[in-house]
Parts: sequence; C-alpha cells; structure tokens
Amino acid sequence: MKILLVGASGAVGRAIAQTLGETHTIVPVGRTSGAYRADLTDDASVTALFREVGTVDAIVSATGHVHFGPLAQMNAAQFDIGLQDKLLGQVRLALIGQHYLSDGGSITLTSGIVAEEPIAQGANATAVNCAIEGFVRAAATELRGNRRINAVSPTVLTESLERFAGFFPGFESVPAQRAALAYQRSVEGVQTGRVYRVW
Amino acid sequence: MKILLVGASGAVGRAIAQTLGETHTIVPVGRTSGAYRADLTDDASVTALFREVGTVDAIVSATGHVHFGPLAQMNAAQFDIGLQDKLLGQVRLALIGQHYLSDGGSITLTSGIVAEEPIAQGANATAVNCAIEGFVRAAATELRGNRRINAVSPTVLTESLERFAGFFPGFESVPAQRAALAYQRSVEGVQTGRVYRVW
Repeated sequence: MKILLVGASGAVGRAIAQTLGETHTIVPVGRTSGAYRADLTDDASVTALFREVGTVDAIVSATGHVHFGPLAQMNAAQFDIGLQDKLLGQVRLALIGQHYLSDGGSITLTSGIVAEEPIAQGANATAVNCAIEGFVRAAATELRGNRRINAVSPTVLTESLERFAGFFPGFESVPAQRAALAYQRSVEGVQTGRVYRVW
Repeated sequence: MKILLVGASGAVGRAIAQTLGETHTIVPVGRTSGAYRADLTDDASVTALFREVGTVDAIVSATGHVHFGPLAQMNAAQFDIGLQDKLLGQVRLALIGQHYLSDGGSITLTSGIVAEEPIAQGANATAVNCAIEGFVRAAATELRGNRRINAVSPTVLTESLERFAGFFPGFESVPAQRAALAYQRSVEGVQTGRVYRVW
C-alpha cells in the first residue's frame, strides 16, 4: 500500500513509519520537516499535498495541538486552538483526502485517552478528542467503495512521560511502538468507525 | 433561583421556561428576540449579557446550529459552522458564565442523540455533540464552589418531527415538555459531569 503519514516526525509518527514501512510505501508529511510539507489548518495546503502525492491507499494522521490550561482562566480563543488544529485539521485531511483515497482505502485519525479520562487543565483536549471519535463514527457510515475510517486513542506515551507526567498521575504509559500497532490494525484490518484504545 | 436561559424562544427553550418558570425566575435570552439578546459566537456580546444580568444561580443553554450535508461534499468551512456555533458558542457561554455563577450554581448545555447515534449527513452534528459532552465531563472536574455542569442530550423532538423526520428514520421522538424535565434534573439536582439522555 501507498500510505500518506501526517505527523511523520513525531514520536508516534516515527513508530508508525517503522511498523508500516516494513511492508508498505510510506509518504511522510510534516508540518515543518520531512519529504512533504502540509499545514492541516489550510485547505489549499492540504489540496496541494494530495495533488502532488496523488491517490493513496491509506491516510494516517498522528498530529495536532490542543490548548491546555485551567478552566477558570480559559477563554474561547484558547479553546478554539484545539478545534482548529487537532480537530478541524484532521477532519480537513479526511474531507479532502476522501477524494484521493483508493477503493478499499482507509483513513486513521488520532484522538487520545483524555476523551474518556479527563485530566487537569484538559477541557479542550477532552472535547477535541471526543469530537474526533464522533466524527470517525459518523463518517464511517457515509464513506463508500469499502473506504474505512477509524481513530486511535493512545494513553500518554512512555517517550513523553517526562514532559507530561504531572498531567497524568498514575496513568500507565505505552511505548510509541505499541501505539503503532493500533494504526496497523486500522490500516490493514477490515473494521470501520472504530476507536482503537491503546492503554 | 435566577436562571439565565439562552435559546428561550426555541421549542425546548419554551418548554424549559414553562417547567422551571413555575418556581424560579427565568431570564430569557435570544439570538434575535426576547428580553435579552446575545450572540454566543462573540465574547463581547456574552460578557455584556452577564454584566447586565449579574450573578445567576443557573445557566441553561438550548441553542446552537450545526452543518448538515453529505460527507462527500463537505468542506472544512462547513464543518467549522457547528464548531463555532453550537460547540464554541455554548463553551464560551460556560467559560464566561462561570465567573457570574453563584456558589452551588449550575451550567446546563445541550448536545443531542446524534452524538451516540449517527445519522445521514450528520458528521458535523455527531462531532459537535460529542465535543459538548466531553467538555462537560472535563469541566465538571475543575469547577469549584460546588458549581456543576451537565449536558442534556435529547432525541428528535415531536414538535420538530415534520421538519426532520427524513433524517431520523425509526427514531422515537419526545415532546419538548419531556426534554425540559432533564434540564430541571440538572438545575435542581446534585450531579455534575453528567449527560442526561432524553430518548
């Protein structure tokens, strides 16, 4: 398969590239680095990416920012950061990418454990991740030609524990390599509208 | 209690006003009608509303638009309609309103059955409603002073069946008056972080 991988330079992205790269052709896409560049917050940038890359058999996204901060100090503009970046960025990739996806192809987006397990300062993250999971469940009912769409919801990565440990007290971490297996399940499997939890 | 009711002129809003108005003081807010006006997509408008109304004991929102349309023709700008209106509009009301909410006060937002039951052309609606429910679950962990936040998730209203029946094949409808009970549970009850399903 020819697999478009957005967020290829991140911890999860690198593990996905390693796992899926063994038997597939990875087209790595980064925000500011990598063979291909795209800004998921920009229609023109995403369209240009697909025009350059052409039809793919799978689209995998492991990217997106949200806003972390105390609810008592949060404002709507801050909340919109996660809506525009991690949520609408990935949705835009799916909405445009569906037209460059081969029959039987799949789209795999990334949500996260805070969709189900709220953490301090994480109201934006929970909302964004829930929305991604909802989008995937709904979009799966409308894709045609055996095209599929799923999400992967990892817990905190072992590789990121040092940076985020204070936000995830008592959470078990998983290595990025284990998270990568869920993306493989989505890409090589047969299910659609699923959220694969990795925790 | 002094209850700020946004969306007071809608079918659900009118039923809420009738139910809660029996024993409480309702401050009705509309987008384009009613004693008080506010545009939930605008920080300044929401802030001005609370400055005028002052502290309230409950904030209830039964308002918000989403985009309906086939996934194959949907673009990011259309998807953003629901993010900015029903999602961020209600979130903005909660983020600003938390500072005008009395100790022990509550916020009640509105999601909808499509969060859990996707319908045709409803990818935006499912994502938006899931995000609202996620926001409520996460925000409930951060509100202090016994302040609470919940969501009500109604199915299609009997009053709206004629307009929306094609989108909800085989769904049982509920009268707005029954949906209003869930808002009463949220306002007068003790729970927080809950999603009250009405279906």
